[in-house]
Amino acid sequence: MRTKDKLVSLFMKFPGIGSRQAERFVYFLLRTHPTFIEELVVNLQNLKSTMIKCESCHSYFEGVSNYCATCSDKNADSSLLMIVAKDIDMEAVKKASLYEGKYFVLGGLLSLRNTDESEPYLHSLSSLVEKRAREEGLKEIIIALSANPEGDHTGDEIRRYLIPLSKKHGFTITTLGRGLSTGTELEYSDADTIKAAMENRR
Amino acid sequence: MRTKDKLVSLFMKFPGIGSRQAERFVYFLLRTHPTFIEELVVNLQNLKSTMIKCESCHSYFEGVSNYCATCSDKNADSSLLMIVAKDIDMEAVKKASLYEGKYFVLGGLLSLRNTDESEPYLHSLSSLVEKRAREEGLKEIIIALSANPEGDHTGDEIRRYLIPLSKKHGFTITTLGRGLSTGTELEYSDADTIKAAMENRR
Amino acid sequence: MRTKDKLVSLFMKFPGIGSRQAERFVYFLLRTHPTFIEELVVNLQNLKSTMIKCESCHSYFEGVSNYCATCSDKNADSSLLMIVAKDIDMEAVKKASLYEGKYFVLGGLLSLRNTDESEPYLHSLSSLVEKRAREEGLKEIIIALSANPEGDHTGDEIRRYLIPLSKKHGFTITTLGRGLSTGTELEYSDADTIKAAMENRR
Amino acid sequence: MRTKDKLVSLFMKFPGIGSRQAERFVYFLLRTHPTFIEELVVNLQNLKSTMIKCESCHSYFEGVSNYCATCSDKNADSSLLMIVAKDIDMEAVKKASLYEGKYFVLGGLLSLRNTDESEPYLHSLSSLVEKRAREEGLKEIIIALSANPEGDHTGDEIRRYLIPLSKKHGFTITTLGRGLSTGTELEYSDADTIKAAMENRR
Repeated sequence: MRTKDKLVSLFMKFPGIGSRQAERFVYFLLRTHPTFIEELVVNLQNLKSTMIKCESCHSYFEGVSNYCATCSDKNADSSLLMIVAKDIDMEAVKKASLYEGKYFVLGGLLSLRNTDESEPYLHSLSSLVEKRAREEGLKEIIIALSANPEGDHTGDEIRRYLIPLSKKHGFTITTLGRGLSTGTELEYSDADTIKAAMENRR
Repeated sequence: MRTKDKLVSLFMKFPGIGSRQAERFVYFLLRTHPTFIEELVVNLQNLKSTMIKCESCHSYFEGVSNYCATCSDKNADSSLLMIVAKDIDMEAVKKASLYEGKYFVLGGLLSLRNTDESEPYLHSLSSLVEKRAREEGLKEIIIALSANPEGDHTGDEIRRYLIPLSKKHGFTITTLGRGLSTGTELEYSDADTIKAAMENRR
Repeated sequence: MRTKDKLVSLFMKFPGIGSRQAERFVYFLLRTHPTFIEELVVNLQNLKSTMIKCESCHSYFEGVSNYCATCSDKNADSSLLMIVAKDIDMEAVKKASLYEGKYFVLGGLLSLRNTDESEPYLHSLSSLVEKRAREEGLKEIIIALSANPEGDHTGDEIRRYLIPLSKKHGFTITTLGRGLSTGTELEYSDADTIKAAMENRR
Repeated sequence: MRTKDKLVSLFMKFPGIGSRQAERFVYFLLRTHPTFIEELVVNLQNLKSTMIKCESCHSYFEGVSNYCATCSDKNADSSLLMIVAKDIDMEAVKKASLYEGKYFVLGGLLSLRNTDESEPYLHSLSSLVEKRAREEGLKEIIIALSANPEGDHTGDEIRRYLIPLSKKHGFTITTLGRGLSTGTELEYSDADTIKAAMENRR
């Protein structure tokens, strides 16, 4: 394939990018100052060497250690482990400043993306959970996935996978609560949301 | 004001209608078959005589009795009273088929619309609550308003207004639970929603 | 049908109104001050008596004469006749302040709406054109319809219908020019628009 | 700046990309297969060596010659020169299959982007025009820019810049015609569009 078409096809794999915008990217790059592409290339080449995947929680961070700041933090509550799909989800929870436990980043939702990689992820998760349960007094795993079919499916799989461990070690497995989210109008809510909001009323 | 301009200004008071669409309504009516306006007029004239406001819950219904079907229903659970803003909210809850108690329709959110009418509404609500508590064993009032600033403000006002009655009669006051609603992605959730979802995890 | 459902079905015939908004209209009306519906009814009843359809151009206007202001205007250029689909189109052209001729309002686009009424409209148009050609020196008919399939189809029908008269009386038939309209970006233009813009370059 | 933040800031310069999407790009890249970034880097590095800017029309093309296919085409009509803002605009015109002349790609609209580079572009344009007029019988320059303020401004500047040459060599300068573009409704058209559509009626 020709360089231009190849670049268009690579940009089309970026999240949210269609063929038209991918083509605009290429023409944009052609017209940028020559140093722009050089800078882009250098930083792309450095990306995977400077952003390290934490051996424990699988989040990406910039540093030289094997473990990210949260996993290295002695003050973090290691009796809690929150499972999220993406690094950005973890950042959203951190911004809310209410959770002080540990994390595990799946790197995607199971079986819709990365089907082949789902097994290794679950395997890593289960090793981590086993270790945490034995050595750090794990009390609760919080499944914190998006409230959509993929998130529900992934959550079910994880729960099924972890139940034997939870029985063996005596920790609980919870899922984020459903209900009205900020901005939701009752009139436009579906039955599942109303049901959850009823059950979680207080 | 001229008839056309007057009609445009009346249609502009309809929910969600701007000047352009209001004008299109008028031209649409001018070009409709003569019987269309006649039918519209007859049904508008009949509306308030055929749609009765339930003396108990303030919802509108078509009938000859003083009380709507739900308020007349001997099987409905009169220990529960759900407060909603609009008739359409009540219909959304009924569609979810999970709540079998009674309702009270505020007719709008307090203090942003119908400021002048808020007092009478609260007064009616408080009479109803008093009666339900004495005669029908009211155990819980569920405040079921939209998860936005107006809904929160109205809920706070109602709660403040009903607390003395709740202490006197021993019923509880709850609010619909917050959390992730169907379709919500964690990445885009605000801190309040994440906090509620954490608190309501199970 | 019950009054509420009947009103919902009538509002659903208004341009751009779906079932949900139609229902909101009804609840809005139920909760409005009683005088609101009275005002609405009075003005609806007066609409067709105060808004008169001009006997000549078929536009609607408020008045007591048989002819609208433009048709009565001795200074308007009666050698030009512009055919538009809707009253609102005529107003858009008037706002542009560049055309000083006469109008004819079709009342819709042919054959997609008002199929049954298309014949009478074309008949009225042809009588008007005949009269204008004989008595007022008609030189040009400008077909001014929207640039979409319905507009094109209607324009074709009108042109076909008027060609014999144009030959008999010696007037021309033109159509509004195509090209880039304000805000159009070349990148997103279709072949027809680019073709027209090329042909109309100056 | 750290690699991740630097990459986010570079992606934010891509057309239509905000901070949130730029960040998603980085996390997407971190999770892709290692070969993806390698492929991206190789193709980015090759881009400017394989995509050549045509010495004549300034469009980008993949090849080894100094001139693009259109500029090298002996059958193209060299009496016509169309000035467009972007490579993608040229492709849109080519897709419409109606123009068989030559092109010149500005590489952007003047004075809003690339202010500093506008002079050289106009200089190149004027050299090309001079050469075409002397050697290839240039008869018409077609200014084919978007119908918005930036396009109008750029067109005015180019026209002003080329008028002396047009007088000296006897070619004409035209601009793409305005009017209703495909899909435009008369009701929503502005006065400029209606005026142009009236002037270009046929």
